[in-house]
Amino acid sequence: MSGTDDRYAVLVERLRKVALLESCGSVLGWDEQTYMPSGGAAHRAEQLALLAGMAHHEATDRELGDLIGELESEDLGEPGGPRAANVREARRAYDRATCLPRRLVEEISRVTTLSQQAWVTARREKDFPAFLPFLEQVVALKREEAAAIGFGDGGEPYDALLDHYEPGATSSWVDGVFSPLRAATVELLDAIRGSQVQPPVDILTRSYPLDAQREFGMAASKRIGFSFEEGRLDVAAHPFCSGFGPGDCRLTTRYDEHHFPGAFFGTMHESGHGIYEQGLDRQAFGTAMGVSCSLGIHESQSRMWENFVGRGEPFWIHLFSEAQAAFPEALGQETRERFMAAINDVRPSMIRVEADEVTYNLHIMLRFELERALIDGSLDPADVPGAWNDAFTRDFGITPADDSEGCLQDIHWSAGLLGYFPTYALGNIYAAQFFVAADRAIGPLSEQFAEGEFGSLKEWLNREIHQRGRQCRADELVEVVTGDGLSHEPLVAHLRGRFGPLYDL
Amino acid sequence: MSGTDDRYAVLVERLRKVALLESCGSVLGWDEQTYMPSGGAAHRAEQLALLAGMAHHEATDRELGDLIGELESEDLGEPGGPRAANVREARRAYDRATCLPRRLVEEISRVTTLSQQAWVTARREKDFPAFLPFLEQVVALKREEAAAIGFGDGGEPYDALLDHYEPGATSSWVDGVFSPLRAATVELLDAIRGSQVQPPVDILTRSYPLDAQREFGMAASKRIGFSFEEGRLDVAAHPFCSGFGPGDCRLTTRYDEHHFPGAFFGTMHESGHGIYEQGLDRQAFGTAMGVSCSLGIHESQSRMWENFVGRGEPFWIHLFSEAQAAFPEALGQETRERFMAAINDVRPSMIRVEADEVTYNLHIMLRFELERALIDGSLDPADVPGAWNDAFTRDFGITPADDSEGCLQDIHWSAGLLGYFPTYALGNIYAAQFFVAADRAIGPLSEQFAEGEFGSLKEWLNREIHQRGRQCRADELVEVVTGDGLSHEPLVAHLRGRFGPLYDL
Repeated sequence: MSGTDDRYAVLVERLRKVALLESCGSVLGWDEQTYMPSGGAAHRAEQLALLAGMAHHEATDRELGDLIGELESEDLGEPGGPRAANVREARRAYDRATCLPRRLVEEISRVTTLSQQAWVTARREKDFPAFLPFLEQVVALKREEAAAIGFGDGGEPYDALLDHYEPGATSSWVDGVFSPLRAATVELLDAIRGSQVQPPVDILTRSYPLDAQREFGMAASKRIGFSFEEGRLDVAAHPFCSGFGPGDCRLTTRYDEHHFPGAFFGTMHESGHGIYEQGLDRQAFGTAMGVSCSLGIHESQSRMWENFVGRGEPFWIHLFSEAQAAFPEALGQETRERFMAAINDVRPSMIRVEADEVTYNLHIMLRFELERALIDGSLDPADVPGAWNDAFTRDFGITPADDSEGCLQDIHWSAGLLGYFPTYALGNIYAAQFFVAADRAIGPLSEQFAEGEFGSLKEWLNREIHQRGRQCRADELVEVVTGDGLSHEPLVAHLRGRFGPLYDL
Repeated sequence: MSGTDDRYAVLVERLRKVALLESCGSVLGWDEQTYMPSGGAAHRAEQLALLAGMAHHEATDRELGDLIGELESEDLGEPGGPRAANVREARRAYDRATCLPRRLVEEISRVTTLSQQAWVTARREKDFPAFLPFLEQVVALKREEAAAIGFGDGGEPYDALLDHYEPGATSSWVDGVFSPLRAATVELLDAIRGSQVQPPVDILTRSYPLDAQREFGMAASKRIGFSFEEGRLDVAAHPFCSGFGPGDCRLTTRYDEHHFPGAFFGTMHESGHGIYEQGLDRQAFGTAMGVSCSLGIHESQSRMWENFVGRGEPFWIHLFSEAQAAFPEALGQETRERFMAAINDVRPSMIRVEADEVTYNLHIMLRFELERALIDGSLDPADVPGAWNDAFTRDFGITPADDSEGCLQDIHWSAGLLGYFPTYALGNIYAAQFFVAADRAIGPLSEQFAEGEFGSLKEWLNREIHQRGRQCRADELVEVVTGDGLSHEPLVAHLRGRFGPLYDL
């Protein structure tokens, strides 16, 4: 088996090289969103296109393909074990990459770099027409990508994009998962809207000085387990987390003096992503065992820390007095009970990243619907604002006043991330299942949180989820970790359990 | 000539690709110095080594060599013109690169990345022994590099390194330039030390709030012509300027509340570098016509804005009242005359980057002496602190209290920049010659500065120096721009002219 060992070692080395090169692009991408002066956009687009092209060149090298082919017919030890998983995922990545010409990869990189800069300005200035030419290019390129990759019987072009972020997922499968969640969400939302309870939301829009927000957010992030020796928190127009590789993971958020939840829960959310990145097996860098399982699983981690932990009573039993000390003007005279009600206010609102836990998934479903139409060609990019506003009014009963709180609110389309949105709602579903399993295994978590103890949950997640890398698919991981199949019911039960008492339902 | 045109276009495209890849490394290097969490060092070293190796691979491609060879025998238009210069410098870069094995290039990149991180800690903790293993590795690698590149008849290994930063320069040539400057410096310094004048230096160590320093420094930088639409100013352990490419140039400085000149003149200095980078012909990116002439010429630009402009009376005629408004506690009751005397205080001091204009060059000559000895093997890295302190005491009559104000003060050796230091003193010499020529051509500059007008100097530098790229060598550029040969005399005249009156000599 020595020949196999040698070949496997060469495979790992080649995969690491691709990952290392891609991680250089991550640094440049992070810089683009955080510190790059506006004049640098055109040069940055050229830099990123070159790196993307070179990484693609390495990832599609025929020798790599041959090596994978040889290893597939050899004994890699335990079926489904780490080696087998790495070879299986190397095949998957190779096959996908070889569908795409280098020209297309470079062009997508170049266009999306410029497009993200254009989006920042267009969003600020509520100017969709200025963004439209970029959106048209991005959609055309992603349609070309989808066509090059293809999709299975009975599928649709969007599946090709979706599968990149959530391996194995198809549009119709997502439809099947989302439908009962939508029905339960609408029912719960109706009940809440019929309630007489009026959460004191004015608490959240008092004066929260920016420096104090930053300090308080970082302290919370550290408390739940994000390491600032191996990471940072900066400001960006759209919050994100970028793991560069072992020992370096960057979070961003955005601050508004008169909106406490935006930066704080944004920081908790990105910290959840960061804790995942920092929890990956660093020895396995570059292979499937050293990356996240899927974006849905990634999102399950951020949503868990943001919502299941961060918006829960036990968390604030521990932290509320510190919040009062950090924001004496806003919270000094407040009670924890009123604060809890305010941060769990449920109501239709325009901005996804600031949405409550109940309406959040409706935001996702709307994007899923529009993206599918953009990719199958039935929706013209020029018609996006109208389609957005119509669908939004239908689902939420309110209409965006302008495109900055409508179709321009998210960075994703400018960044070419079509097919990504559904993973957010899948993440909520996964998170609920994982949280129940964690509580069963190492709980009661509520008692630990109330004492400021978050380490056992973090370690459980490290062991049960992060360290498994991409060894299995997301739905398989849910089964392995929880012993149950994928189901929206734990999420619905969580929502009913949290909001029923708050709204006297 | 169409075949030549085609080949030339291919050459430019290949050179641009190398430069683009190198510029990705610049972004990662800048991030390493400014924002990278300490845990990211090992991964960053791998990233930078890969990029350096890939750039080296492209830069040494045999097809590139063949292309240069073909073009050398063809008609490139005007001899010494832009095309001829680009091919000449492409040859120079290719020949140098092909002397070096990729392994060595990658290893230097990897080791110097880790070494810079170790240096930051060692400097802070005044712990030379902790840094020594890195210095040993760096010196060994640079000696290997020097041996691989070689040097001319009667030369020495150090020449191979020097030539990289200052094309055409040799150690003995530098000796010849430095000797008379040293003699004149010692004479002037003796006269100043014999003067009864005592500049009121306490002015500079009062309280200068950090935010106000940052704002005042950025305003001054903008005033002299650095564009913040195409650049930034951040904080780093050792100030530097990094031009990433067209439209993006980053400056750094470091702040000390009780030392005004450090950050301010550091910012002026780096702004001078930045104005050069921003003044390069962006159409020529990647070719010799689109890069700086030499590091000595680069330094001439930073030293000109820092000293010839920034420490001169006319600059402060315009700016002193703004400084008083920015720092009311420190300067509100001060006169411009006393402030001028303080910022032009001359006295032997430990830190090069904060040295006065007279002693500055002695700092350089000391480093030049030690570096030559490290590279020819006559000085062991372990003996650097002793050798440094002996030479320092000999030249300055004072002895560093610890290595953080001695041999650990500069980042250069940790970054592998051996052969770089002499360009600083050469820069002072060039700067004096250029400043005289500019004053003759577009002056009197002093009157313009007194009115806050710096645009005509900037435009003259853009035209006469920046836009010429690397069309000719540094000493040739001096002749072209000033009409005179290289000479230390204008610098000595400047120093006598500035410090004679201040010290009643």
